[in-house]
Amino acid sequence: MNRIGISVKPNDARACALLCELHRWLIEKGRTVFVDHALQSCLGCSTGCEQLDVSEMPDQVELMIVIGGDGTLLHAAKHFIGSNTPILGINLGRLGFLTDTPVGSMFDVVEEILAGNLETTRHFSLAAEVWRDGERIAQGSAMNDVVLERGSHPRMVGFEMLVEGQYVFRMRGDGLILATPAGSTAYALSAGGPIVHPSVNAITVVPVCPHTLSNRPIAVSADHAIELKLVESPFDAALNLDGIELIQLQKGDCVRVRKGGLISLVYLPGRHYYEVLRSKLNWAGQPESN
Amino acid sequence: MNRIGISVKPNDARACALLCELHRWLIEKGRTVFVDHALQSCLGCSTGCEQLDVSEMPDQVELMIVIGGDGTLLHAAKHFIGSNTPILGINLGRLGFLTDTPVGSMFDVVEEILAGNLETTRHFSLAAEVWRDGERIAQGSAMNDVVLERGSHPRMVGFEMLVEGQYVFRMRGDGLILATPAGSTAYALSAGGPIVHPSVNAITVVPVCPHTLSNRPIAVSADHAIELKLVESPFDAALNLDGIELIQLQKGDCVRVRKGGLISLVYLPGRHYYEVLRSKLNWAGQPESN
Amino acid sequence: MNRIGISVKPNDARACALLCELHRWLIEKGRTVFVDHALQSCLGCSTGCEQLDVSEMPDQVELMIVIGGDGTLLHAAKHFIGSNTPILGINLGRLGFLTDTPVGSMFDVVEEILAGNLETTRHFSLAAEVWRDGERIAQGSAMNDVVLERGSHPRMVGFEMLVEGQYVFRMRGDGLILATPAGSTAYALSAGGPIVHPSVNAITVVPVCPHTLSNRPIAVSADHAIELKLVESPFDAALNLDGIELIQLQKGDCVRVRKGGLISLVYLPGRHYYEVLRSKLNWAGQPESN
Amino acid sequence: MNRIGISVKPNDARACALLCELHRWLIEKGRTVFVDHALQSCLGCSTGCEQLDVSEMPDQVELMIVIGGDGTLLHAAKHFIGSNTPILGINLGRLGFLTDTPVGSMFDVVEEILAGNLETTRHFSLAAEVWRDGERIAQGSAMNDVVLERGSHPRMVGFEMLVEGQYVFRMRGDGLILATPAGSTAYALSAGGPIVHPSVNAITVVPVCPHTLSNRPIAVSADHAIELKLVESPFDAALNLDGIELIQLQKGDCVRVRKGGLISLVYLPGRHYYEVLRSKLNWAGQPESN
Repeated sequence: MNRIGISVKPNDARACALLCELHRWLIEKGRTVFVDHALQSCLGCSTGCEQLDVSEMPDQVELMIVIGGDGTLLHAAKHFIGSNTPILGINLGRLGFLTDTPVGSMFDVVEEILAGNLETTRHFSLAAEVWRDGERIAQGSAMNDVVLERGSHPRMVGFEMLVEGQYVFRMRGDGLILATPAGSTAYALSAGGPIVHPSVNAITVVPVCPHTLSNRPIAVSADHAIELKLVESPFDAALNLDGIELIQLQKGDCVRVRKGGLISLVYLPGRHYYEVLRSKLNWAGQPESN
Repeated sequence: MNRIGISVKPNDARACALLCELHRWLIEKGRTVFVDHALQSCLGCSTGCEQLDVSEMPDQVELMIVIGGDGTLLHAAKHFIGSNTPILGINLGRLGFLTDTPVGSMFDVVEEILAGNLETTRHFSLAAEVWRDGERIAQGSAMNDVVLERGSHPRMVGFEMLVEGQYVFRMRGDGLILATPAGSTAYALSAGGPIVHPSVNAITVVPVCPHTLSNRPIAVSADHAIELKLVESPFDAALNLDGIELIQLQKGDCVRVRKGGLISLVYLPGRHYYEVLRSKLNWAGQPESN
Repeated sequence: MNRIGISVKPNDARACALLCELHRWLIEKGRTVFVDHALQSCLGCSTGCEQLDVSEMPDQVELMIVIGGDGTLLHAAKHFIGSNTPILGINLGRLGFLTDTPVGSMFDVVEEILAGNLETTRHFSLAAEVWRDGERIAQGSAMNDVVLERGSHPRMVGFEMLVEGQYVFRMRGDGLILATPAGSTAYALSAGGPIVHPSVNAITVVPVCPHTLSNRPIAVSADHAIELKLVESPFDAALNLDGIELIQLQKGDCVRVRKGGLISLVYLPGRHYYEVLRSKLNWAGQPESN
Repeated sequence: MNRIGISVKPNDARACALLCELHRWLIEKGRTVFVDHALQSCLGCSTGCEQLDVSEMPDQVELMIVIGGDGTLLHAAKHFIGSNTPILGINLGRLGFLTDTPVGSMFDVVEEILAGNLETTRHFSLAAEVWRDGERIAQGSAMNDVVLERGSHPRMVGFEMLVEGQYVFRMRGDGLILATPAGSTAYALSAGGPIVHPSVNAITVVPVCPHTLSNRPIAVSADHAIELKLVESPFDAALNLDGIELIQLQKGDCVRVRKGGLISLVYLPGRHYYEVLRSKLNWAGQPESN
């Protein structure tokens, strides 16, 4: 692995310092390093510093390193959908689900990876389209979740959901979350959704504050196409992808969501999924034998 | 009962027609009828039609009749907080928790009330104040709920809650609902809160999509003062009273909520609380003996 | 399809009458009909009535018809795990998830099937084993769920869960449900689990009244092996398969659960999964266009 | 305060040692100490050791000290219902909701109390009666909860609930919990009930794994009488008071629950309710100013 990309949390002094350190260290090891354009003021680098927009990196790099929180990683990962380039998330703050390598072990882990010892988990993404009056007016991708929600106006949004063209339900409430397994431990979990292991090929449908009490989270096959038709909409309902607003919606709009391309995250050796889960969710119990 | 106020759902042809009918019927019975100013175009009345803003009615009328849904009643009831005037809600659409008299029995029920046969349930309201930099910048009342929430920006709002000056928790999430027993079957129920009988003197604290999984709804004494301090706030967090935005909040703002005055709702003879509940929540079971 | 098996709900006059009717009708159509041994007193048949234990039918019949509720079907289906024989469930009472053909359309549906027009959904089962002191002391299969629970003694059961040998959590509570997608709408749903579409290859792990509040339902790959080790056990904890007790458990026992063989249920033409769901869960909303 | 009762967790070496220490210390201070009969082998005391059954202590002692967990305290407290004697719970294990004084501060706290510095919280209890064929066949009290549940037989129990004689619902499921505010943080919380502050005069009704999805916890006035009529019952349904079985129930049985007498628990100075809650529920957040 010779060509390495780095992106860090913007406007963060600690992230910037780590970027400089890591950059110098990689250059010394004879690697070609690409740093996100947006970070040039941070790096102030003199030699060997190739600047590239993160959106162009997938074609150029063999390993992508992201330093920040889950939000920073989600932002960078979007550009790597469908690419095989492994992404390594270095966590600056509290342990993240996606960025589970602590800063303290950054150099050790990168050294291992450069030596060819790495495992990756492949996560599928979601591809969303918004249709209005027969035209596609917006589209985008999400690694965690596609969320339809009422905006700041405290009136419910109402919509119908169809799966593979079959009518499922009409719901009114604050919104609806469609989550990948990676996203199942993010917003969907706060809204009462189940935890879904990354190996399960399912999209979780989680209602947010539904008006009908018998509504429940539903896991549908990730190979099924989901359609949401807005039948009732306060003036500022919106569609959010990974917590970023894609577009404001109107009554009559149709949102179509399908499984999108894959993303490869570096899997920290000896740190399995349930360990992260347990630590994030404050499950105190240790196995008896320990 | 001689002086009767009427308010109806605005911009609704059916409500307008019912208003005219009820107005005529009451005039024929020799009553003085006050109609909300805002409805004059609707009534187009010639004689005996006294117009008055709903906010001035509490001092003038001995019975208040509201025709519409729970939203219409919440709007009118706000002016009757602390007054002893009974309010009768006539429901136009699907059965409401507050407006539980169907249109079909309107004349029968009003006739009964005029004959002096009426029972009322007294509901307490909530009084909310917003403090910024040592000054009270907003205040208002709610019959159902006081809701602190992030706005359309999909970032969590973070706050601390104190009860009687004692620190309870710091929470991050979509928001927090403080609900009266009347409000326990409204938004708070969708967010996972318990149903609270009107006779219980408690305010229910219901987190909306909390980041910490062990957060749970809490019922505190309605005689205790509740304080919410915003410690983290996206740019458009807001405080809503009964679903109407009172003010946008900033980091550092402090929201104080206390039990407010009482509201008297006419209690339909032979139609008890649990019957309404059962029918609204789609509980199918009938008692064995029936 | 010439060889047809029938099993009905035992000790039920209506089921017995339907069995006789259906038996006669099939004989007239020239089919060979096998009736469950246990039902002989019910049928009182004279000619053409082959009696066979339901456990022997999988090798003999090309179509299995079960008349009763979901419980009756679960009982019969257990014998058809791994067989390709389609099972048709005729529902006697309220609509069932597994027995979704109403009695009124029984003859029409069977006629269609005999004419070769049938579609089936394939459901996977769960295979459970109980190990004590290095020996396997019990085993069995379930179509809906494997449930570990404390018995009537109101003390919590405590256990550790491992998935593919990886420690997941230690939990204390009333019990734990491992559900197939078919079982996700049964007991697991009452305990707060998500609905899982039959096409999703996942086992749902649903805690029952967990002591730790941050415990949540988890969906794991159905291809992963699950292990539950009892570390704390009141005297009458038990392992139930589809609601039938397999064995009482002791501290130290280990329960191993894996995906088992498939079961083919006849899929009623024009009656898709979400329609049944909607009707069972009392979701009132109809699509706008209807 | 001169006459002091002590009861400790049975069959626990550490509790026994603490009992001896505390006993000697109190005798040295000139107090009369009563020790539960059942503990005589533990104490092995020679002089000044008055033995008395815990059931007789309420008439004899001015302060009751319980060393153990919440279970030990629940057992002793039952005898003090309606008495004004304050009870102090010393916690042996993990922090309890009722026994919130750590062993380490036992002597300091008792010293304070003997000096007359003590505050108490008064908790109401529940009084339950079981009626069969017009006769009362069992009765008992509970400080935390009255629980109707199916036993080890995995079939649902079905019952009707009435409040003040008004029909509320018919429910089928694993059971129903009626909890005092003290009990709201015990079993009821695991089953999804709300936390209720001790100052709220309400009984919380929490369904356990209800068959109908729209069932929700309900808080009713503690001054209202609750009645549960069994209309469907597997053979070993039972009524449990504070986790101890009172009686096995049959179809047709009627359970009547009312608010019972009060219990006074010593309130640790400087240790308020929400602090205990926060620590027990693993709410990590600290107030900003700390």
